[in-house]
Amino acid sequence: MPDRNPSLPPARVGIIGLGTVGTGVARVLQQHPERLARRAGRPIELRRAVVRDLNKSRGIELAPGVLTDQVDSVVNDPEIDVAVHLVGGVHPAREIMLALLEAGKDVVTANKALLCECGDELFARARALGRTIAFEAAVAGGIPIIATVGQCLAANQITSISAILNGTSNYILTQMARENWSYAQALRRAQDLGFAEEDPTLDVDGTDAAQKLIILTRLAFGVNARIENLHRQGIDRLDLSDLAYAAELGYTVKLLAVSRLVDGQLEMYVQPTLVRKQTPLAEIHGAFNAIGLMGDVVGQTWYSGPGAGQMPTASAVVADIIDTVAGRTQLNYPRLELWRDPPPYTLQPREKIVGRFYLRFQVQDQPHVLADIADILGRNNISIASVIQHEAPESNHAGSATVTTVPLVIMTHRTTEGNLQAAEVDLAKIPAISPPHVRMPVAG
Amino acid sequence: MPDRNPSLPPARVGIIGLGTVGTGVARVLQQHPERLARRAGRPIELRRAVVRDLNKSRGIELAPGVLTDQVDSVVNDPEIDVAVHLVGGVHPAREIMLALLEAGKDVVTANKALLCECGDELFARARALGRTIAFEAAVAGGIPIIATVGQCLAANQITSISAILNGTSNYILTQMARENWSYAQALRRAQDLGFAEEDPTLDVDGTDAAQKLIILTRLAFGVNARIENLHRQGIDRLDLSDLAYAAELGYTVKLLAVSRLVDGQLEMYVQPTLVRKQTPLAEIHGAFNAIGLMGDVVGQTWYSGPGAGQMPTASAVVADIIDTVAGRTQLNYPRLELWRDPPPYTLQPREKIVGRFYLRFQVQDQPHVLADIADILGRNNISIASVIQHEAPESNHAGSATVTTVPLVIMTHRTTEGNLQAAEVDLAKIPAISPPHVRMPVAG
Repeated sequence: MPDRNPSLPPARVGIIGLGTVGTGVARVLQQHPERLARRAGRPIELRRAVVRDLNKSRGIELAPGVLTDQVDSVVNDPEIDVAVHLVGGVHPAREIMLALLEAGKDVVTANKALLCECGDELFARARALGRTIAFEAAVAGGIPIIATVGQCLAANQITSISAILNGTSNYILTQMARENWSYAQALRRAQDLGFAEEDPTLDVDGTDAAQKLIILTRLAFGVNARIENLHRQGIDRLDLSDLAYAAELGYTVKLLAVSRLVDGQLEMYVQPTLVRKQTPLAEIHGAFNAIGLMGDVVGQTWYSGPGAGQMPTASAVVADIIDTVAGRTQLNYPRLELWRDPPPYTLQPREKIVGRFYLRFQVQDQPHVLADIADILGRNNISIASVIQHEAPESNHAGSATVTTVPLVIMTHRTTEGNLQAAEVDLAKIPAISPPHVRMPVAG
Repeated sequence: MPDRNPSLPPARVGIIGLGTVGTGVARVLQQHPERLARRAGRPIELRRAVVRDLNKSRGIELAPGVLTDQVDSVVNDPEIDVAVHLVGGVHPAREIMLALLEAGKDVVTANKALLCECGDELFARARALGRTIAFEAAVAGGIPIIATVGQCLAANQITSISAILNGTSNYILTQMARENWSYAQALRRAQDLGFAEEDPTLDVDGTDAAQKLIILTRLAFGVNARIENLHRQGIDRLDLSDLAYAAELGYTVKLLAVSRLVDGQLEMYVQPTLVRKQTPLAEIHGAFNAIGLMGDVVGQTWYSGPGAGQMPTASAVVADIIDTVAGRTQLNYPRLELWRDPPPYTLQPREKIVGRFYLRFQVQDQPHVLADIADILGRNNISIASVIQHEAPESNHAGSATVTTVPLVIMTHRTTEGNLQAAEVDLAKIPAISPPHVRMPVAG
C-alpha cells in the first residue's frame, strides 16, 4: 500500500542511547516502515543513533552515518524533529533533555527516575518552550497506561490507582509462593533467568515501583509527590511464612503501588500487600505488570501486560514517536494534569492511612499472651477480625527450661497505621513478644 | 483553576438520543465543566439534546432551549461542532449520521449495529467530507479498547484479539457455573436484576459480541467482515453439564469473540469456548468485559472493565467528545486502518480453523462404543487428548431391555473444524450414539 502522503517529507528521529530498548526501537523503525508511515501520516526516518562506544556490537545494521557518539549531532541537527531520549539515570540525562528541548525537539523518553526526580523542571520547561515530553515507556512497559490516564479516561477524575509496577518483584513473589522458595532462593533464580539484575536493589526495595507510581500520580491527580515522602517498603525482607499465612487466609502477597483519594486527601504507598485470591491483581503472575484504575465516571478498569523488556518497551516508545510525528502529542501535552498549581490534593500522612492489616508476632507459647495482645490492640482502637495460632511443634513443654515461641497471626478490622504504631510501642514492653513484628496492609 | 484558554469560544455539542447513555453523557457535561474544559482546551457546552418525546421525564435538568424533538436543530445549527449520535438501530440512524456528516459535524457514536452494518459507507463518507466518526463507546463500554487498538498500540500489527464482549452472556455463564443454575434459571435472574433485557436474543445468541468483534477486527486488521460470514454461536443452547465437565477438566466456559492471524489468514468466530482456569479471561466474572490483544511488538496485553451501563458508556462517549474538541480525533481518524483496500487478509473458512476441541456425545453404555468413536476420530485425523466417561447411575444393566445412555466427553489434540465435521457424518451412522453432539473450541 503506498504511503498516503507521498508529498510529506519524512519525520526525522534521533535516538540517544542504543541499549536494549534503543536497539528495539531502531529495529521496529527498520522493520515496519510502511506500517509506521501509514499510522503517523508520513514516513519516519532514523536519522541518528547516539552511543557511547562506537565499537560495541549491537546486533543491528544501521545505514551509514546514523551511528555516532556525539549527542550534539542530534541536538544541533535542525532536521531532527523527534528525539528519543533513552539515557539512564539523572545526570547527564537531565542536561541532555534540557538541551534537546531548548533546541526545539519534541522528546520521547523512558527514563522514570529522571521524570520522578526532575519532572517539575522538565515538564514546565518543555511547556514554556512549546515542546512536548512523551513518556509512555516510563511506566509499565508495554501497557499503554499513560495514554489511558492522560487521554482515554479524560472524562474521569481517577480516584484510585492500585498496581503491580515492578516485574522483578512480582516474579520473585510468584516463585516464592509457587515453589516454596525463600526470598534469597527466588532472587537467585530470577537473576539466573535475567528477570533480576546483578544488583537488584532498586527493584526489590520498592524504589522502581515508587518512581512509576509517582509519575502516574502526577498525571492522575496533579500531585508531585517526592519519593522520600511516601511510605515505601520492598519485598527484600519478606518471610516465606507470611506468604503461607496469607494463603491460609485466602490472600496472595503482592508488591502494590497505591494512590487513592480518601476524603479529599491522597493516600499513597508502595508495600507488600495482601490481595484476596481470585481478584485481578492476585492473579498476575511472573514478570507481568497490572494496573487497576478507578474513575469517578467509568468505575473500575484493569490493564495488564509485560511491564518491561526490550520489545514491550519499544512498543511504547514507538507509539509515542507516532503520536508526536502525527501531532497528537502536541495537542495533548499542554492539557495533561502535570501542572496543577496549587496541587489539588495533599498527601495523607502515613499515620492516618485507614485500612485492614495483617500482623504477625513471634510470641512465647504460654498462657495469657494472646489476651495481652488483644487488650493492647483493643485499647488502641484496633479490632481483631481473625487469628491464626498453630500448635507449637512440641506443645508439651510444661516444666521445660526453654520456652517455645510461636507465630501469632492477626487480621484486623479497619484501623489506622497510627493506631498500629501506637499499639506497637505498648507491645514492645511485653517480654513474651519478640521482634520482628510484621505488618502488611490488606487491599480493598 | 481557570480555563487555560478563556479566549477560546466553547465547543458546542448536540446530543441526538437522550436515553440511558445520552442522559449519562449530559450529566457528565453538566457536573464537570471545569475538568472537561481543562482537558479539551476549551469549554464544552451542551447546546441541544434531541428526544422523540419531549414530555418524558429523564431525571436531568437542562437549560431552557436545550431539549428539542427536532434532529434538524442539530443538523442545521452551524455553531454545533460535535454531534453525539446515540440513535439505536440502523434506520433512521444511518440517515441521521449521514445528514450530520454532510452538515459538517464531527460525530461521536455508540451504535455498534450501525457501524457493523453500514461502516463501509459511513466511514468512507466521513473521510471524503473531511469529517470524523469516533466510536469508543461502541465496543466494550468503559474499556478504552478503540483508542488502544487505533492509537496506543500503533507500533504493532495486532495478531490476535480474544475477548469477552457481551456482559449479559458472561453474567449468565458466571451464575450457571457458580450456582449450578440452568441457562433458563440464570437468564431469568439476569432479567430480574437488569443484566438482561426482556428480549435477550441479540445478547445471548452472540450477535452483540459479533458486532463488536467486527468493529475491532476492522480497526485491527483492516478487514470488514460481514456478520453472516463468521461462525457465531451464543450461550442460549448451553447445557449445564458441559460447564461441569469443563470444570472437571480445569476449564471455564466463556463466550469468546476471537479474531487472529494464522498463516496470513484471519480466523474469526464467536462461540462458547473452554478457557483454562486461572488465566485472565477465565477470571472475568459477572457483567464485566475483557479483551486480550496480542501485538507483534508488545506481546500479550489485557484490558478489562465494565462493558456496558450508563456511566461507563458515558465515560467513553465523553472521552471521544474531548478528543474531538481538542482536535486529536481529526488527526487520528484518517490514519486508522478502516480503509485498507484491498483488505490485507482474508477470512479463513470455518472448516480450516485449527484448534483443540471439547466434544460431548450421548452414547449407549455398551461395549465397543468408545472404540468405535476413537476409530472414527482417528480416521479423520483427530487425536484424543483426554476422555471423561463416568459410570452410569445404574451400571449393572446386563440383560436389561433398556439400554442406559451416558455422556462421553472427549478433549482432542489440535485438529480442524473440517475434520470434526467429517467425523460427525461418520459418527451419525452409529446407532449407539445419539444426538446432540456438543462441540466447543478450547482457547490457546
